[in-house]
Amino acid sequence: MARNKHQRYGHPHLHTPNMDRLAARGVRFTRAYVQAPVCGASRMSTYTGRYVHSHGAGWNGVPLKVGEQTMGDHLRKAGMDCHLLGKTHMVPDVEGMERLGLSRDTVIGRRVSECGFDVVERDDGVNPEGPAGRYDYSAAQHYNAYLNARGYPGENPWHDHANSAIDGEGNVQSGWFLKNAAHPANIAEEDSETPYLTRRAMDFIAQAQGPWCCHLSFIKPHWPYIAPEPYASMYGPEHVLPPVRSNAEYENANRVLKTMMAGVIGSTFSKPEVRNTVIPTYMGLVKQCDDQLGVLLDWLEATGRMADTLIVLTADHGDFLGDHWLGEKMFFHDVSTRVPLIIVDPSAEADVTRGTVCDALVESIDLAPTFVDVAGGKIASHVLEGHSLLPILRGQATEPHRDFVICEVDFAGAIFSEALGASAHEAIGFMIADKRWKLIHFETGDPPILFDLENDPDELIDLGQSPDHTEIVAAMYAKLFAWARRPSQRTTLSPADFDAMRVKLRGVGVTIGIWDEAVLPPDATIKYRNRKAEPWQRLIRAKGA
Amino acid sequence: MARNKHQRYGHPHLHTPNMDRLAARGVRFTRAYVQAPVCGASRMSTYTGRYVHSHGAGWNGVPLKVGEQTMGDHLRKAGMDCHLLGKTHMVPDVEGMERLGLSRDTVIGRRVSECGFDVVERDDGVNPEGPAGRYDYSAAQHYNAYLNARGYPGENPWHDHANSAIDGEGNVQSGWFLKNAAHPANIAEEDSETPYLTRRAMDFIAQAQGPWCCHLSFIKPHWPYIAPEPYASMYGPEHVLPPVRSNAEYENANRVLKTMMAGVIGSTFSKPEVRNTVIPTYMGLVKQCDDQLGVLLDWLEATGRMADTLIVLTADHGDFLGDHWLGEKMFFHDVSTRVPLIIVDPSAEADVTRGTVCDALVESIDLAPTFVDVAGGKIASHVLEGHSLLPILRGQATEPHRDFVICEVDFAGAIFSEALGASAHEAIGFMIADKRWKLIHFETGDPPILFDLENDPDELIDLGQSPDHTEIVAAMYAKLFAWARRPSQRTTLSPADFDAMRVKLRGVGVTIGIWDEAVLPPDATIKYRNRKAEPWQRLIRAKGA
Repeated sequence: MARNKHQRYGHPHLHTPNMDRLAARGVRFTRAYVQAPVCGASRMSTYTGRYVHSHGAGWNGVPLKVGEQTMGDHLRKAGMDCHLLGKTHMVPDVEGMERLGLSRDTVIGRRVSECGFDVVERDDGVNPEGPAGRYDYSAAQHYNAYLNARGYPGENPWHDHANSAIDGEGNVQSGWFLKNAAHPANIAEEDSETPYLTRRAMDFIAQAQGPWCCHLSFIKPHWPYIAPEPYASMYGPEHVLPPVRSNAEYENANRVLKTMMAGVIGSTFSKPEVRNTVIPTYMGLVKQCDDQLGVLLDWLEATGRMADTLIVLTADHGDFLGDHWLGEKMFFHDVSTRVPLIIVDPSAEADVTRGTVCDALVESIDLAPTFVDVAGGKIASHVLEGHSLLPILRGQATEPHRDFVICEVDFAGAIFSEALGASAHEAIGFMIADKRWKLIHFETGDPPILFDLENDPDELIDLGQSPDHTEIVAAMYAKLFAWARRPSQRTTLSPADFDAMRVKLRGVGVTIGIWDEAVLPPDATIKYRNRKAEPWQRLIRAKGA
Repeated sequence: MARNKHQRYGHPHLHTPNMDRLAARGVRFTRAYVQAPVCGASRMSTYTGRYVHSHGAGWNGVPLKVGEQTMGDHLRKAGMDCHLLGKTHMVPDVEGMERLGLSRDTVIGRRVSECGFDVVERDDGVNPEGPAGRYDYSAAQHYNAYLNARGYPGENPWHDHANSAIDGEGNVQSGWFLKNAAHPANIAEEDSETPYLTRRAMDFIAQAQGPWCCHLSFIKPHWPYIAPEPYASMYGPEHVLPPVRSNAEYENANRVLKTMMAGVIGSTFSKPEVRNTVIPTYMGLVKQCDDQLGVLLDWLEATGRMADTLIVLTADHGDFLGDHWLGEKMFFHDVSTRVPLIIVDPSAEADVTRGTVCDALVESIDLAPTFVDVAGGKIASHVLEGHSLLPILRGQATEPHRDFVICEVDFAGAIFSEALGASAHEAIGFMIADKRWKLIHFETGDPPILFDLENDPDELIDLGQSPDHTEIVAAMYAKLFAWARRPSQRTTLSPADFDAMRVKLRGVGVTIGIWDEAVLPPDATIKYRNRKAEPWQRLIRAKGA
């Protein structure tokens, strides 16, 4: 695909024929937003179909509270299983599970502690070790066992081989350090994470019975930024596009944004040597994903599964990689919050949209209701805050029912909050965007940031304090306010249940504010109307009776 | 107590010496607000310590979603049991319990289905029957069995005796019809609901071991409005105070308010004959509560429990009874949302505040954290949205940390929404008030209502569209907006957990945006720094190594 700033797809040097192949068969969405620019929070929204403000798990490592319903809960109710293969970054609410007596030794307990998925294999792809111990003792355990069996030694070959290089003197060059991104990972390509997970997916699909949903969750491209050969050498600094940034943007940055730009990550990724080292590797990792997607698609075609499988390609966030003087994700520019989304619906009804591009405002929370729709289930609109995309995929609609998207970040647990001087309650940010405007608000008391996405698609000019835009700012705030008031926790009854409830009381004899039974229609009469007491009833004589 | 419009306590004819006795020993709060003006929603807030917007059960009959933590959960963690005796109006989230495999046959399942209480006896006091069946088949079953044993016959003596009169011809005069409120209930006073529950409370306390919390939840005064003798005859129309209302108020009423005034309940209670019939009975029921409170207090004194029991007297809402051209509750005037609250802390530290009056802005959600504080537990401020009142009770503070109160109503399941033409998403109202102003907002698109509580304590003049008050309206909306954005679902980690998380990542080896290990301090070094590969490690030679 040709690079197009407004569509954010395509690259002059990095070609992705297999993603293009999906796009040619399906619908490519150009305005798909994640609900959080950080892995775990974004994924919790995708898996629950709910905003961060609704489920509360706004940062990596924040447990998803017990009771939250997941894609798996909704799909199983519709008769479809829901499986995981790869990363979720989910942390279970251990305290909540204990409170409710839920054990991971039961099917229900396992699902609750795994975001509602039946786990084929979980691999969060983050398996470091530091002076205080491991980040996560369960992540990548299957993959490490696989690597050991394949002859890669050590307790954590995920690190030593898949995510490190090695120099001529036998020194492990950890992929955790960006300078090592230029070197190839010390692993054969076929044993690296992406091909491994792809093979696991084919194994799973080959044996799967009945309707299934499989969340094949690749880890790369992601840190540690390191790729095996041939991908490590595939791209060089000459293939790196210039960063999207300006000096004025840095000088005029809002305090919150400036603090992030000035931090370690921002200033590191702002350096040409870092970009020229990391980005070619990142491109190699994307290319590897595309090649593995090709392997999977070929296999789906060969097995006939291509004809009856709906395929979604998307991401949990983007990566600044030096754009806007930032690295990583964790802020609200489109480069981080607007993600690729391609959906291939194999049904004949979707033939009318094949190969088309859709610029509707779409959110990650739309996926769960889309899947329920595919499964033929009833979409619980009082729980799922997104909208099914099937009407768009099948040419019956061009937009879901929304006029803005929301993205949130919760820095309460991030070291960034220290630099910002923000308490756990202040360290929260909201983004609200439509096709023209994007407003960013932090609870720190700083003024908002406003971008004009039409005239400044690169988001270089903050109009948050422009006197000409006070009405726009107010209008976007009003929409955010209405959104914040939504009854997101009213999840036990549906709108239809409430409609039924409106007429229920009288039928069961509750008559409020009725002076005399004579005013009631006969069919609303309570049982006791005109009732004679039984002769043997004790009479405590009424006053004046 | 003398009646004081600002303090809302006292009545020239209805004397409550036992409530006064509590006030003389404790602190009487003059600005205590409930979080919803309808029983069930108000109680769910009290029991969870959370706003309706946080727990979602905004109307009677809306199940409290599984996963919500309750007073009982918090107290048991602090080593105190939590028991129920009387009404809760709780509806369990049966679907959620099934999803998590929770059965009412287990202790945990029973607690989840009873708002976290260990049930001594539940009696919601609403046991009607209509053409569509019973409102609730479990309510009042113990009480009905008691009445049967005492010689009151029939399947539902709760209705036929405790809540109905009988005329000279043996006709049951149902208490559901207001005209019958003038007659005495066909029951001996000692067998009516309030004395029955009081005795059950004494029985419970007499046998209770260890630290306990007992929610003694009287049903009356509440519809069906009917009282046993002597309370039925204690007050007459001559003791009824004039309604608080004005013709201008009716004429100028906001559409939502006007619709409610014009409805069956409002127009019924606006009639003098209704007020003169119902209010004397309502007064009698209050008097009976006061007398039974006296029985309980005498018994607590005689048994020594008065010296080690913290006592709270409060209500789940008020009752318009014709004020503001309204009946029942369900709107946001003080008469409905501002409730009595008296707290007696027996500890010596509270001696400094005995018999004092406190005008702090207090909410029902403050009770749960107060109880946790009394139990010596750690208040989970990331779950409990209120504040402990112990500092006020012990003279260490005069206000909790807030500058407004919130009250909410959710009419989605109310027949009123039909008259209003409101969908389930529009039928929601918010009240935000400080000591001076009260703003009321509905999601129907109607303009807000604003009352000046200082200059118009009777809330007769709606300033919501006054050009002189646009800034006040905007300021109150801004506070409501900030409140609506609060991270109410971030309940799995405390602020202290987040502070610890801020420094955790590096300790476990996640180093993001680090070019070279040399920049890290030695104690943040990941395990793999300067590590030599084992001699037998397979080498895939690095580019350029």
